[in-house]
Amino acid sequence: MGGIDPDRCLPADPATRSIARGLLEQSSLRPLVCPHGHVDADVLADDAPFPDATELLVRPDHYVTRMLVSAGVPLEHLLTDDPRSVWATLCEHWDWFRATPTRLWWEHQLSEIFGVDPAPTPDTFDEIGERLVRPEFRPRALYDRFRIEVLATTDGAIDSLDAHARIATDPWPARVIPTFRPDDVVDPDRPEWPAAVERLGELTSCDVGTFGGFLDAVRARRAAFIAAGATATDHGHPTAATLDLDRDECERLYQRLLGDEHDDTDSEQFRAQMLTELAAMSVDDGLVMQLHPGSFRNHHTSTFEQWGRDRGVDIPTPTDYVRGLRPLLERFGMDPRLRLILFTLDESAYARELAPLAGVYPSLMLGPAWWFGDSPDGMHRFRELTTDTAGFRKTVGFVDDTRGFTSIPARHDLARRVDASFLARLVVEGRLGHDEASEVAIELADELPRRAYRLC
Amino acid sequence: MGGIDPDRCLPADPATRSIARGLLEQSSLRPLVCPHGHVDADVLADDAPFPDATELLVRPDHYVTRMLVSAGVPLEHLLTDDPRSVWATLCEHWDWFRATPTRLWWEHQLSEIFGVDPAPTPDTFDEIGERLVRPEFRPRALYDRFRIEVLATTDGAIDSLDAHARIATDPWPARVIPTFRPDDVVDPDRPEWPAAVERLGELTSCDVGTFGGFLDAVRARRAAFIAAGATATDHGHPTAATLDLDRDECERLYQRLLGDEHDDTDSEQFRAQMLTELAAMSVDDGLVMQLHPGSFRNHHTSTFEQWGRDRGVDIPTPTDYVRGLRPLLERFGMDPRLRLILFTLDESAYARELAPLAGVYPSLMLGPAWWFGDSPDGMHRFRELTTDTAGFRKTVGFVDDTRGFTSIPARHDLARRVDASFLARLVVEGRLGHDEASEVAIELADELPRRAYRLC
Amino acid sequence: MGGIDPDRCLPADPATRSIARGLLEQSSLRPLVCPHGHVDADVLADDAPFPDATELLVRPDHYVTRMLVSAGVPLEHLLTDDPRSVWATLCEHWDWFRATPTRLWWEHQLSEIFGVDPAPTPDTFDEIGERLVRPEFRPRALYDRFRIEVLATTDGAIDSLDAHARIATDPWPARVIPTFRPDDVVDPDRPEWPAAVERLGELTSCDVGTFGGFLDAVRARRAAFIAAGATATDHGHPTAATLDLDRDECERLYQRLLGDEHDDTDSEQFRAQMLTELAAMSVDDGLVMQLHPGSFRNHHTSTFEQWGRDRGVDIPTPTDYVRGLRPLLERFGMDPRLRLILFTLDESAYARELAPLAGVYPSLMLGPAWWFGDSPDGMHRFRELTTDTAGFRKTVGFVDDTRGFTSIPARHDLARRVDASFLARLVVEGRLGHDEASEVAIELADELPRRAYRLC
Repeated sequence: MGGIDPDRCLPADPATRSIARGLLEQSSLRPLVCPHGHVDADVLADDAPFPDATELLVRPDHYVTRMLVSAGVPLEHLLTDDPRSVWATLCEHWDWFRATPTRLWWEHQLSEIFGVDPAPTPDTFDEIGERLVRPEFRPRALYDRFRIEVLATTDGAIDSLDAHARIATDPWPARVIPTFRPDDVVDPDRPEWPAAVERLGELTSCDVGTFGGFLDAVRARRAAFIAAGATATDHGHPTAATLDLDRDECERLYQRLLGDEHDDTDSEQFRAQMLTELAAMSVDDGLVMQLHPGSFRNHHTSTFEQWGRDRGVDIPTPTDYVRGLRPLLERFGMDPRLRLILFTLDESAYARELAPLAGVYPSLMLGPAWWFGDSPDGMHRFRELTTDTAGFRKTVGFVDDTRGFTSIPARHDLARRVDASFLARLVVEGRLGHDEASEVAIELADELPRRAYRLC
Repeated sequence: MGGIDPDRCLPADPATRSIARGLLEQSSLRPLVCPHGHVDADVLADDAPFPDATELLVRPDHYVTRMLVSAGVPLEHLLTDDPRSVWATLCEHWDWFRATPTRLWWEHQLSEIFGVDPAPTPDTFDEIGERLVRPEFRPRALYDRFRIEVLATTDGAIDSLDAHARIATDPWPARVIPTFRPDDVVDPDRPEWPAAVERLGELTSCDVGTFGGFLDAVRARRAAFIAAGATATDHGHPTAATLDLDRDECERLYQRLLGDEHDDTDSEQFRAQMLTELAAMSVDDGLVMQLHPGSFRNHHTSTFEQWGRDRGVDIPTPTDYVRGLRPLLERFGMDPRLRLILFTLDESAYARELAPLAGVYPSLMLGPAWWFGDSPDGMHRFRELTTDTAGFRKTVGFVDDTRGFTSIPARHDLARRVDASFLARLVVEGRLGHDEASEVAIELADELPRRAYRLC
Repeated sequence: MGGIDPDRCLPADPATRSIARGLLEQSSLRPLVCPHGHVDADVLADDAPFPDATELLVRPDHYVTRMLVSAGVPLEHLLTDDPRSVWATLCEHWDWFRATPTRLWWEHQLSEIFGVDPAPTPDTFDEIGERLVRPEFRPRALYDRFRIEVLATTDGAIDSLDAHARIATDPWPARVIPTFRPDDVVDPDRPEWPAAVERLGELTSCDVGTFGGFLDAVRARRAAFIAAGATATDHGHPTAATLDLDRDECERLYQRLLGDEHDDTDSEQFRAQMLTELAAMSVDDGLVMQLHPGSFRNHHTSTFEQWGRDRGVDIPTPTDYVRGLRPLLERFGMDPRLRLILFTLDESAYARELAPLAGVYPSLMLGPAWWFGDSPDGMHRFRELTTDTAGFRKTVGFVDDTRGFTSIPARHDLARRVDASFLARLVVEGRLGHDEASEVAIELADELPRRAYRLC
């Protein structure tokens, strides 16, 4: 049985690698701080065994399914056929994943978590299956084994937070906290928006028939999330546009949207205005804002209609942060009470827009390389393109952003390897002291996310 | 006499270089597959000796002439003066090409093909001239010496394909095939468009007075190209816009264009609609589509008016693939019968748009770094920015895209060096097994282009 | 006391570093040519001692103040509090500058110019203070010690050039020359524009009530600048738009602007038209044009209103050079009498637009990595992204662009290190001869700027 290279993703130059290895040894000792991700809280509330390797590793992972679809495999097969046959399909196409981050995450999971050969074969399905029924592979046992210190989930504004409540009242001493992601009530382009707004009103006993009442309802849900441990909000918008309309304009816009006589501009304006409203709320209640803009969601309509969201057909687009964020920043950008963490899928904005913005506005911080950027070379580019202007302290360290619970350690490990490599190069090039690099490696591993997300 | 470095363009780190050298040794054994280029088929049909070094290497190569023009040399001198004096001009300005890919391609040609010093001097003109008259420097002899397995030319929709017919009926057993590039009849902004459409009607005996008849005529020419060996089409458009209008709208648009009462929007719409029509034809007849968008052609009007197209005054612009291609992809993106190979001059689209699109749509593949991107560092960036999300199998290997027949081996050699270097880094960084890297090096060299262009 | 690494910013690979070190030894011997910067000519005319470390190194440097503001330090503290307490603030936040170019420039200044420890402490304030009162730390003594051969300042169209006159009539044999930066009279969006235009009329005795008279006045000021030694102009525009309107349209546009019945489009059109007018003047009088487009100035209005321009709240935006510059280039692009040096804050334009434009138009040259791009990795990217298509000779070498007089040597030193590293990699990779790399290193250090700016 093969293993994985202990020096994987460290730099080729021997002197640089040696320094990187030392930095990695130090950062590897730190626990995992996971302030942004998409693990379902029910997994930890129920603590039921994972059903099988396909349900755990293939079907929910759109990095995997999208690559297989691109290779000509029908999505229907992957989502509906027998788990064992889907696993066999994955194995047949394993070569397609060469040099992708998915491959690195899988190798880590297979080798380090399940103790099987890092290259999947049809037999691996059963080898993993044997392990999944054991108590030490149940979600809570893995949570403890992974040394997770805090895990934030992502939850809609009208989610019940029931799973979080169950975990909170349980003697198991983990910190699993929700994140307030109100896209369900903020994005009028979603077909379910009217129903979600109505449900918001019911949940909060607010009159959502007026914009003022709607804002009160949002505030009430934020308070409920804070009571459940939340320290942050998250916002997935098509663009980074913000607006600062006066109250009357807001009310008219909201009424148009409720009344179904609106167009795309109204929807975009509402989302833009809501970002500024949400920033105002953050100034009051202290929740850290996260903005994930720039994904063209559900690019292929018939795939969306048949299989729903998050099937790998979301494609990045150019994003204008400078003009987009300005109305919000004019009001709150220099206010130290606001914290707004920016992400991007448009790498051309790293050096041009994001580092210059975060390098002057005290309210802004930079989230790590996101989604398609979350690869060894992608994370390197993030550091190379932002550090000059924004330094390390305006970044928030790593967030794993994963749906795959067992991929969490692999993702943190990879990020720590990239950061160690980047820092080692700075040391060898005489741009940073070795002792300083050690400090930064540890800051990036857990101090920065803890501080950035107000977790301590 | 100097030679060229056998380790040129391999990485500096000794361990990485050693692995790269081994990978290159393997890929170097493979023949040259040339599925996209701009060699004139007459060159091989006639098999006449090349006239002289200037006609072969300077005048037709806009990489060379544009750099000399940028240095202050009048284009008129380069295109019309005595070949020997033009060669002397090139030699005087040789330093201007330092660290450009043109220099690498020239060094390879001078040293490896003509056996002269890699740095040109006035004497080199005669040294090359002496060789060009020998039988072993005639085009067909070089074709065989270069180990070209298949060479695709680029041909307008109304081209006669006479040269291809002459080669086909000749006992010489080479595979020289046309590529269907219908920009002449698809782009109404060209002054010669009405005449080209009329000629298309004559050639095919179709009534090009209606849009339906025009489409029939295009289909007929595709069939003629297929009969002449073509496996692919190519499309050079200012943008990546596509449309999916209904039949009546198409007819009205076509009539406006024929009737000369049209504007720029009509032209853009027609090109956009035609890409979708051509995709539909590809689904039927199996021709592989290539799209080369984003060049602002003939940026300097008076240069164009005096000297015509392809004089080096074409400048890249930002290109929107996500919104642009959507109408076409909504219809055919998930259809495995379509194959659409995308190129770009806008590197910011590699990671942001192209790899995510190719990483989910089975119909899409990524062409290699194009034109200004076809340099050692440019090809490295292509791999670094696309492999994470699209892997290797969604790329088509190398296409030389050259007008310069004798530059073909140099271009393939350089691409293989870059791929070997990229793969060697992955091996040293523990991201890919050494045996896997060998497989990929060979795939990239000839298996992928063969499969992508349906050549086998 | 610590020093700074003599090998700082040289590449990790030992063989490459050794070559880079040799190239740097050669380029380090060259004097400093400073054709573009923001040192105040009064500093050298008066030759008064610098007041203290905070006034010299903190308050005027928006790289420093913006980072401190981003860390939560109020700008008011930095600009108005006691110098010693501001210095203490800087020291407390020194870690925020890790791996930024500011840190490299400071280390060089503290260690090499002031002979103190490269990491600032509260004591450093006094250590620098002790030195600043000595004659050898007066501006002119430092100018000579720095081996500055020529220093260009930046001056508005209505500036008096009095300081330059004082230097010119002084026996001190330095070459301190103005640069004509007419943004004050070219940008109607500035509140002070009408007054500036009126003052321009007074200074030149031209009738600025008509566009023709306004142009005459501009020409007269250019002549005055040339008489004071200027060889160049500079233009800071929000975009790279140019226009080529006919004379009547120009007059009407100018009258609308004078009459206060204009909109944003008028202002943009005026700036665009003026770039073409200024190019026409350059063709006549030989002044080299520089264009610095793409900064969204004063992004945070209340900071601007309270503290004025250049406080670090200028953010880059995407810039379209291809369509923007076309009207100007249609007229003068191929004219060898024009020289237009282009800068960018949008790195995505390096390979896509700027290198292809400079690689064909004889009038165009590329300025070095600007502002946020002026870092080790940023300067590397500039070379990697432009050299393939534009070579070295279409670049102008380094310009320090600094407000900080004592940072001039640090900035040139860093640029020479990056160029030596880039060239050394080309040598090791067999892409450039060692002897050629030596020639290029020296060209980049002083020959190219001298020629590009017509200083010799």
